[in-house]
Amino acid sequence: MQHETLEYEADGLSMRSRLMFESGADRRPAVLVFPEAFGLGEASIDRAERLAALGYVALACDLHGGARYVDDLQEAMGLLAPLFADPQRTRARASAALTALLARPEVDPHRVAAIGFCFPAPLELARSGADLKLVAGFHTGLTTNGPPTEVGAIKGRVLVFIGADDPMIHTEHRLHFEDEMRTTGADWEMQVFGRTVHSFTSRDAAKRNLPDAVRYSAQADARSWKSLVDALAEAFSKGQHSDGG
Amino acid sequence: MQHETLEYEADGLSMRSRLMFESGADRRPAVLVFPEAFGLGEASIDRAERLAALGYVALACDLHGGARYVDDLQEAMGLLAPLFADPQRTRARASAALTALLARPEVDPHRVAAIGFCFPAPLELARSGADLKLVAGFHTGLTTNGPPTEVGAIKGRVLVFIGADDPMIHTEHRLHFEDEMRTTGADWEMQVFGRTVHSFTSRDAAKRNLPDAVRYSAQADARSWKSLVDALAEAFSKGQHSDGG
Repeated sequence: MQHETLEYEADGLSMRSRLMFESGADRRPAVLVFPEAFGLGEASIDRAERLAALGYVALACDLHGGARYVDDLQEAMGLLAPLFADPQRTRARASAALTALLARPEVDPHRVAAIGFCFPAPLELARSGADLKLVAGFHTGLTTNGPPTEVGAIKGRVLVFIGADDPMIHTEHRLHFEDEMRTTGADWEMQVFGRTVHSFTSRDAAKRNLPDAVRYSAQADARSWKSLVDALAEAFSKGQHSDGG
Repeated sequence: MQHETLEYEADGLSMRSRLMFESGADRRPAVLVFPEAFGLGEASIDRAERLAALGYVALACDLHGGARYVDDLQEAMGLLAPLFADPQRTRARASAALTALLARPEVDPHRVAAIGFCFPAPLELARSGADLKLVAGFHTGLTTNGPPTEVGAIKGRVLVFIGADDPMIHTEHRLHFEDEMRTTGADWEMQVFGRTVHSFTSRDAAKRNLPDAVRYSAQADARSWKSLVDALAEAFSKGQHSDGG
């Protein structure tokens, strides 16, 4: 598998994301992988590697600039607070990653998806009208402080995986998200997992010592990942039959 | 594929369900298939055939007795009204189907699941404490007039597929169901499909001429069925490693 660092500017920061793909001559579908609040670390690199092993080009995206990884949750949330307050900044960081990815000769620009964990960069990118065939979020924030999403803005499928007992993603957030998706006319789906809280995909969750709020679930992790892999295959198989222009 | 009629008494009725399986000597996992309110018809037989083709024993269950199929929705709902009022009667019909299935030499009694469409027979069976590895409901009713489900009563995984715009399954029903599952401690998951109403698996839905309430969706049908097939494989693979007693 090829590994490269992909550098670009975004939101005033020098980003250093990690590109992965298997060798080959054809243009392939591609997936942006946005990390949890902590930033670009082993967890998102591991996911990107799994996607590259499936034959996709995967970009594990820098979030804080300089490929910075912050181990302290409070510090990470502090870094993100201005982005939650102004989703245009989140969109700027996500959009620059997409642009950098699309510039690669390995990538089929008509078949691109974005996934993310906790931090809702993929959803913000979708709201901005980006041409993504699939946007998926694992224990992702569902609400936005951005302007109301325009009807038709969301181009591809939206798939979110939520722990039913996640204290950070309330029932009201879910219902608000449903209303947003309904209003925009998006093709959306929400998979709600019982007995599951936040960060259910994160093997490091126990480090936080907050098991009622943040806890790894091998079961929800496996089920949601399988759903994602199936959804990518479906989304990219459709893209293959598009005009190809 | 072998087809047989399986006859048994339940809730004062003579039931004539349809059993399907591929030839073979081994005991296999088995799936009860409960129909929509109309009763045992082509739709549920088709689903059972698909499951039998996957190597399972499938029983397309009689609902109204005498393998009766009622084409008129009002008439069907009238037949079911006493069952909604007294879920013990639903449980009696479902439980008798399970007992008849378990008596078959083709069936591995430790690996049985139940699925259903609209009418919540599988959920009622699960609430009664039946040993099912998986219970799945497509556009299934979520609430019950039965007694509060006991903690630990639900033995296997619960997976429900709901149209986000289903006017028969309100948001309040979904939230009530979540509370029930949470309280009982079940392993549950809900997949909510946007732009989807009731009967999304039913190719006959257009006959009802109520497209805002009852409408086929090839997309939600395919996605939910794929999730079901994966969930059955997961549930039965676990059962295989049980004590086998």
